[in-house]
Amino acid sequence: MGRTSDAREKIISAAQSLIELRGYSALGVAEICKAAGVPKGSFYYFFESKEALALTVLDEHWAGQRRDWTRILHGDAEPLQRLRQLFEETEAAQRAGQKSCGTVSGCLFGNLTLELSNQTEAIRKRLQEIFDAQVDMVESVITEALQQGEVDVADPREAARSVVAQLEGQVLFAKLYNNTSQLGALWANALALLGARSPRETVAGT
Amino acid sequence: MGRTSDAREKIISAAQSLIELRGYSALGVAEICKAAGVPKGSFYYFFESKEALALTVLDEHWAGQRRDWTRILHGDAEPLQRLRQLFEETEAAQRAGQKSCGTVSGCLFGNLTLELSNQTEAIRKRLQEIFDAQVDMVESVITEALQQGEVDVADPREAARSVVAQLEGQVLFAKLYNNTSQLGALWANALALLGARSPRETVAGT
Repeated sequence: MGRTSDAREKIISAAQSLIELRGYSALGVAEICKAAGVPKGSFYYFFESKEALALTVLDEHWAGQRRDWTRILHGDAEPLQRLRQLFEETEAAQRAGQKSCGTVSGCLFGNLTLELSNQTEAIRKRLQEIFDAQVDMVESVITEALQQGEVDVADPREAARSVVAQLEGQVLFAKLYNNTSQLGALWANALALLGARSPRETVAGT
Repeated sequence: MGRTSDAREKIISAAQSLIELRGYSALGVAEICKAAGVPKGSFYYFFESKEALALTVLDEHWAGQRRDWTRILHGDAEPLQRLRQLFEETEAAQRAGQKSCGTVSGCLFGNLTLELSNQTEAIRKRLQEIFDAQVDMVESVITEALQQGEVDVADPREAARSVVAQLEGQVLFAKLYNNTSQLGALWANALALLGARSPRETVAGT
């Protein structure tokens, strides 16, 4: 029982690492099993297809990231400071990833959106749910900031989507140039997008 | 001679369509040749590898897009209005693509950045050059707007990168939700990012 459960976790973990390095389409089940150190026969005991594995990888990655986002965005700091912390932790995570594997791997959800959303409807739907949840969380912080008069936006949801779009666009550049310092602009850009160009604290250098 | 040249163009055109639909990694040379209607043997007469073909697809796509961007961004309109026109034509192009193939295919450069930039250095370098050129063109418009006192930015290059990042992020959402109306926010967001929140003209509905 212990070993069975291990094998499933090993497959998921190997698949996530390989997807981050090389995308989804280029991978085969045999390669994932080899990297996981499990016999190929056991793959289909746990997953009915490579797509089913990809959905599980998305779910597990989002479960972890949702915990982080919840801790930060539901925290005690002032609303805009929570957004700032989200950007700083995102930059730190990308920097740690770069240190461990040599390149900035970017956002797993953004990567798979551009690679796969037109190819499999199940993956598109899951990615939509994940980005909807991210936008919900950012919208809730913007609504608080709006109630406190700290931002000036007509539509908090549209504003939240723009902040997440800015995050995805800058992470794309961080991956392209293999340079996380791109992400240093996120905080000032979010303030600008939210009509809060005079924050209480000055923008810290990174 | 005419037929030879045709075959090369057919391969490039088929490859671009297939890459937009399904990404690069999932494609094989045989499939590209079949879609192009040319014998597989002729592929290696024109291209030494699939990667060489991908670089040619990038170059040709950028040659066309650079012509459009130059026409718009070097036009006679006021600087900020040229940016607005760029966003409107981007949205129209994505809408036309969606009409012809059923789904929003997004930005070829963004797609291949997230799929491939960590896998092949030649493609990463070419994509860096293309995005550098895009940022150059937007920076030049922002610098003009700055000289005319229409925007308030400390660093025109950083601002240009943020505008292009916003464009890539919103195109990602347009692809994810298969909905080009996402792109309607680009103009207002660019004004906000550039500290030009009171444009001379009001934001037009789409």
